[in-house]
Amino acid sequence: MTATKGYAAHDAQTALSDFSFERREPGPHDVAIEILYCGVCHSDIHQVRNEWGNSIFPMVPGHEIVGRVTAVGAHVKKFKAGDLAGVGCLVDSCRTCSQCQAGEEQYCETGSVGTYNSRDYAGNVTYGGYSTNIVVDENFTLRIPENLKLEAVAPLLCAGITTYSPIMHWKVSKGQKVAIVGLGGLGHMGVKFAVALGAEVTVISTSDNKAADAKKLGATNFVNSRRPEDMEKYRNHFDFILNTVSAPHSYDSLLPLLKTNGSMVLVGAPPEPSQVVGFNLILQRRTLAGSLIGGIKETQEMLDFCSKHNIVSEVEVIPVQQINEAYERMLKGDVKYRFVIDIASLK
Amino acid sequence: MTATKGYAAHDAQTALSDFSFERREPGPHDVAIEILYCGVCHSDIHQVRNEWGNSIFPMVPGHEIVGRVTAVGAHVKKFKAGDLAGVGCLVDSCRTCSQCQAGEEQYCETGSVGTYNSRDYAGNVTYGGYSTNIVVDENFTLRIPENLKLEAVAPLLCAGITTYSPIMHWKVSKGQKVAIVGLGGLGHMGVKFAVALGAEVTVISTSDNKAADAKKLGATNFVNSRRPEDMEKYRNHFDFILNTVSAPHSYDSLLPLLKTNGSMVLVGAPPEPSQVVGFNLILQRRTLAGSLIGGIKETQEMLDFCSKHNIVSEVEVIPVQQINEAYERMLKGDVKYRFVIDIASLK
Repeated sequence: MTATKGYAAHDAQTALSDFSFERREPGPHDVAIEILYCGVCHSDIHQVRNEWGNSIFPMVPGHEIVGRVTAVGAHVKKFKAGDLAGVGCLVDSCRTCSQCQAGEEQYCETGSVGTYNSRDYAGNVTYGGYSTNIVVDENFTLRIPENLKLEAVAPLLCAGITTYSPIMHWKVSKGQKVAIVGLGGLGHMGVKFAVALGAEVTVISTSDNKAADAKKLGATNFVNSRRPEDMEKYRNHFDFILNTVSAPHSYDSLLPLLKTNGSMVLVGAPPEPSQVVGFNLILQRRTLAGSLIGGIKETQEMLDFCSKHNIVSEVEVIPVQQINEAYERMLKGDVKYRFVIDIASLK
Repeated sequence: MTATKGYAAHDAQTALSDFSFERREPGPHDVAIEILYCGVCHSDIHQVRNEWGNSIFPMVPGHEIVGRVTAVGAHVKKFKAGDLAGVGCLVDSCRTCSQCQAGEEQYCETGSVGTYNSRDYAGNVTYGGYSTNIVVDENFTLRIPENLKLEAVAPLLCAGITTYSPIMHWKVSKGQKVAIVGLGGLGHMGVKFAVALGAEVTVISTSDNKAADAKKLGATNFVNSRRPEDMEKYRNHFDFILNTVSAPHSYDSLLPLLKTNGSMVLVGAPPEPSQVVGFNLILQRRTLAGSLIGGIKETQEMLDFCSKHNIVSEVEVIPVQQINEAYERMLKGDVKYRFVIDIASLK
């Protein structure tokens, strides 16, 4: 067992603070990783505050993990000590169902094991990346490109794959008209991927403050969704809309912006239901769908795509002691565009 | 001009009654058809009662038309006098936009011309199939198979293509698990098509009265959506759900019945919005979509498919004088499964 320092939510009400726990000894297929950086995802806040009703305390959040391998089990082939390595939202799955066989572990029919606030198949609670080290099966460990800034790679493990996967699944391609709704941790990655694929990208936001950044990230157009005349201009315009907003909003206000056969895919998840009028889908054979992170194979493909296209997240690095303040700033949209914890601050 | 007898709604409140009008002389590309039967679609009621707010009175409804060709224009190639012929929901479209070029005239970017309650590109109001004859461009006239019962073919022109098109577009195939929600004019056609394609079909209805018919039509299973324990049994079960219900209902109660990557397609259109929780789509990459009738080429393909598989609609033939009573019975679901007007009653 390895003594580990972490930062944990001890209940749903109080601020996160120090927490000591132990990691398992690496088994024959395990990789032991010294964590260097961990991104801060909006779902960390939801779970720390038990907003999804499934929280296990104490909780060590964090599923955007990058670090360096310190030891590997006897059967590990992909990694050796000293390599960079990453861990995303999943640390295990049944590996036998049709989804796992297809490399879509996020849809595992048995139920995959989350990196934190989850139980592994032996029943042990999983602890995430707000900690000094982690032990993960090599099949759920990602190779991290050496050519990218490491702290800016961390958010790719969740924000990156969550936007990359639907963009690839719905075959966004050169010349297509693509809208990204919401320019935050997810949205800014969506813009980068769609631009890299040659799409003509429009950012849709409720705040004009995002217009300049949208252009800087490569978007061609900016639409303020609070101005009906702007929205009307883009009616029947988009092949694909990636909707990253997790605050309550109307899907019916966005669906008419899709062309015939266009798709709007949700990756942000307002817990409240939204309204949909059937005619908005029927009259032009439009699609409303959702997408959940991505499988391990696709996550590796995304990291390699980022390496090739020099894509990283825009980050603000903080010491772990500022995490509670960071959560408050995230809730106000006051971060460009992802907080990343420098785990050196825990040691 | 040809004197024509019809049955019309003169306003949104009063019963339909006799109406005389004239059809244009057939132009060089036109087919003149003596109407023999016309199916009664739920959308006839919506439009007669101005429930969609776009009604033009007097209105001669009817877009499930079959009859016999009486004359053809000089340039008509596909038809000659004496042939059977059919007309569905559309009588013209711009023919030049990308949708028309793709044979998807129902999504015409200029706006297609409906068979009734519409205006043609010259501005003339169109009158439908509750009438003794009609004149239609040959490109919007369908060939009707000789081997099927003619009165039972009429509903294929709308109820048939409306269900066939999404079933083909979403590639329903042998062995797939398919649900048809609602067993009415649309739903019973959906069952027949999905069964003919070799799918394992489940009918979902609010009424146990439909169970025996569901089996008779070829469905393997029947689920009463008012019994939560039945619905729970089919959680994560279906590859494809065809939702034909046009009464207000919850999409969120049906979406969990889809497998990962499954699609629910709306062809019934409740005018009221329904609620959708994002998680129901996200957690299993499910799709909610809509589909509108079908293009002319696909309608012909559907008729040929029906000829080959001996598929027709289940109909109750009525004289036109019973149409007002028929509407009332349709609103109570009291028809198995489509009323068809015997146009001989008009002559």
